[in-house]
Amino acid sequence: MATIVQKYGGTSVGSTERILNVGRRVLATQREGNRVVAVVSAMAGVTDSLLKLASEVSEDPTEREMDVLLATGEQTTIALLAMAINHMGGKAVSLTGAQAGIATDGEHTRARIRNIASEKVDALLDDGHIVIIAGFQGQTADGRISTLGRGGSDLSAIAMAAAVKADRCQILTDVDGVYTCDPRVVPNARKIEEISYDEMLEMASSGSKVMQSRSVEFAKKFGVVFEVCSSLNTNPGTIVMEEKPHMEAVVIRGVSLERDQAKVRVGNVPDQPGFASRIFRAIADAGIIIDMIVQNTSEDGVTDISFTLHKNELVKAKHALAAAVEGFAAGDTRVTSEEGVAKVSVVGIGMRSHSGVAADMFTALAEAQINIKMISTSEIKTAVIVAEADVENASRVVHDAFGLGA
Amino acid sequence: MATIVQKYGGTSVGSTERILNVGRRVLATQREGNRVVAVVSAMAGVTDSLLKLASEVSEDPTEREMDVLLATGEQTTIALLAMAINHMGGKAVSLTGAQAGIATDGEHTRARIRNIASEKVDALLDDGHIVIIAGFQGQTADGRISTLGRGGSDLSAIAMAAAVKADRCQILTDVDGVYTCDPRVVPNARKIEEISYDEMLEMASSGSKVMQSRSVEFAKKFGVVFEVCSSLNTNPGTIVMEEKPHMEAVVIRGVSLERDQAKVRVGNVPDQPGFASRIFRAIADAGIIIDMIVQNTSEDGVTDISFTLHKNELVKAKHALAAAVEGFAAGDTRVTSEEGVAKVSVVGIGMRSHSGVAADMFTALAEAQINIKMISTSEIKTAVIVAEADVENASRVVHDAFGLGA
Repeated sequence: MATIVQKYGGTSVGSTERILNVGRRVLATQREGNRVVAVVSAMAGVTDSLLKLASEVSEDPTEREMDVLLATGEQTTIALLAMAINHMGGKAVSLTGAQAGIATDGEHTRARIRNIASEKVDALLDDGHIVIIAGFQGQTADGRISTLGRGGSDLSAIAMAAAVKADRCQILTDVDGVYTCDPRVVPNARKIEEISYDEMLEMASSGSKVMQSRSVEFAKKFGVVFEVCSSLNTNPGTIVMEEKPHMEAVVIRGVSLERDQAKVRVGNVPDQPGFASRIFRAIADAGIIIDMIVQNTSEDGVTDISFTLHKNELVKAKHALAAAVEGFAAGDTRVTSEEGVAKVSVVGIGMRSHSGVAADMFTALAEAQINIKMISTSEIKTAVIVAEADVENASRVVHDAFGLGA
Repeated sequence: MATIVQKYGGTSVGSTERILNVGRRVLATQREGNRVVAVVSAMAGVTDSLLKLASEVSEDPTEREMDVLLATGEQTTIALLAMAINHMGGKAVSLTGAQAGIATDGEHTRARIRNIASEKVDALLDDGHIVIIAGFQGQTADGRISTLGRGGSDLSAIAMAAAVKADRCQILTDVDGVYTCDPRVVPNARKIEEISYDEMLEMASSGSKVMQSRSVEFAKKFGVVFEVCSSLNTNPGTIVMEEKPHMEAVVIRGVSLERDQAKVRVGNVPDQPGFASRIFRAIADAGIIIDMIVQNTSEDGVTDISFTLHKNELVKAKHALAAAVEGFAAGDTRVTSEEGVAKVSVVGIGMRSHSGVAADMFTALAEAQINIKMISTSEIKTAVIVAEADVENASRVVHDAFGLGA
């Protein structure tokens, strides 16, 4: 008898009608002869309503209490889903994060899972129950309610799959799986059958927001194989797993795009130890998250350093930099910036053993008359910054160049 | 330093604006130099919304899951109230029923409190916190969420007051206190300053629904003195306490009325052991709650038995009785019934040591040309059934007869 963990997101449980659909699917999964755990999110819209209530009583709500408040969202869903399944003749029981043994640290609103004591879940499964668990939440060592932050329900599901030694973990969502590129941009994008954790991580951090990186990292760390698939049909989705030798045969797994970027260039930086540190310390101290960093080879004792970030952070970054570069020895250090840019990345573990990926990508872009503004590479990713206006065309020509289309 | 438990009902916390008001009051109570515990209900309307959701997924929702669902209502309020108080510069912390140590039996949707382990609450109070506790809910010995049923939040407050050895327990509600009669019926009704548990119980069971009897019984059992007062002003309310010698000086504490009653008469019942038992066993087996029972002195070997009940139960009761009386030896046992009646009761512990209360009541009614349809008495109560059309006038003349008006 296989143990399956299924995770249903907020849209999948967004109404009582959809909860009934989820109930039917969960029950069918059990009746196929499986032990089933369902991890669920708050109904779509509920979290926003709760945040609005909080904003009405406080401009800066206590994080401890925010967790108590938000945790009611998933608790509502688990009760309704368990009721629905019982009404259909199934035998379901709901557990909050705390009841399911999900122990976290004390960082309210962004807690990390410390461990899962799954004895209660195991016992309920052994007893023939479908176990419905509130995602996104846990309990601190001293009994406070905690929440896991963005992507928390995925994390709950993957951690629970590790704890109960699940044979399968399914992340059910409103897309069919992970695609070679966003099908709204590249119409012939294909669903990927198998993808390695590392590729999935690079796709996620490059803007393919099927899942948050932290959940994929957790799955990688604990070797949890999971499937991203649709909650609306039973088509096979995308299996995310440790890389296998045969996976390297595919050089490029997919193309990822990220819009609304800005790039900043700090020119004429003295090519001496400490200056890069001063620049990025200033950025970090301002709480700004940056993406690519590029430093060119120096010439005449000065160099220039470029980086990208979300365009909404640009004003704050320029402000922080202005103060930082003031004391630089080379008096003509200049900060320039450009908005209206986007990032296109090709990702694939096959890149490690295949040469020419970057060349092929740049050739495809050149033939389409698309100018490259920045280049950055990792072991399994090559990323370029192009004008926002070019990003869709760039994605299509790169996607075609690597033969990813259906 | 006094310890005060305050209970705020659903109307008092019915909007974020009202939660802010409650927050100000709780904080003011602490700043007067008190240790404060606030027990709160779900925001008015929230429980109904949750019940509606449940009805959409199941016609007969699992009681265990209903408790998981309903408990989110109070959990939302505690988080918001704690946020509000913290925003005002106070130091508040919320606890669910389980976190507050409220242990119950396993009777979902109508659990009884077994005991309260108040160490956590005590420690938080010692540390200068205002402790906000979710009323209406607790936890079973094996860690399930339970709810206490109707009037549960009052019960939580009174039980918590006993556990933390509170100096005062205030039940804050939308009325000023307990009145000598419903002021909508008797305009010169007065607020009662002090009332004994027994009088409060008789008033409650006679229709003055300020509080459920179970909370008053609990307070009596554990000697918790509490005050029923308004959440909208700081006027003194009504103190409910063990009777004191001076309380007997007031013969009648109040007049209580209960509408929408029906009376049933079973005539020509053989005056032999077992027949009353058969009648009321049939009623009980049908799940019908009855109020007064009267049996007249027998004549010619037969007697008649009358009882009252809510008019909505009448059809069911007649059905149950028809089957029960079929086998009676006296073939002409007859069931008759009357709707459109109501009950008026006078309540007071002084009745024990004062004669003539019943005579005074009946005289007042007679002078107003009001016909009495049934009479029933207890040690501290005299109740009559009158026509529904007479109930308001009956209440007024009885209220005046005992000099209860302001």
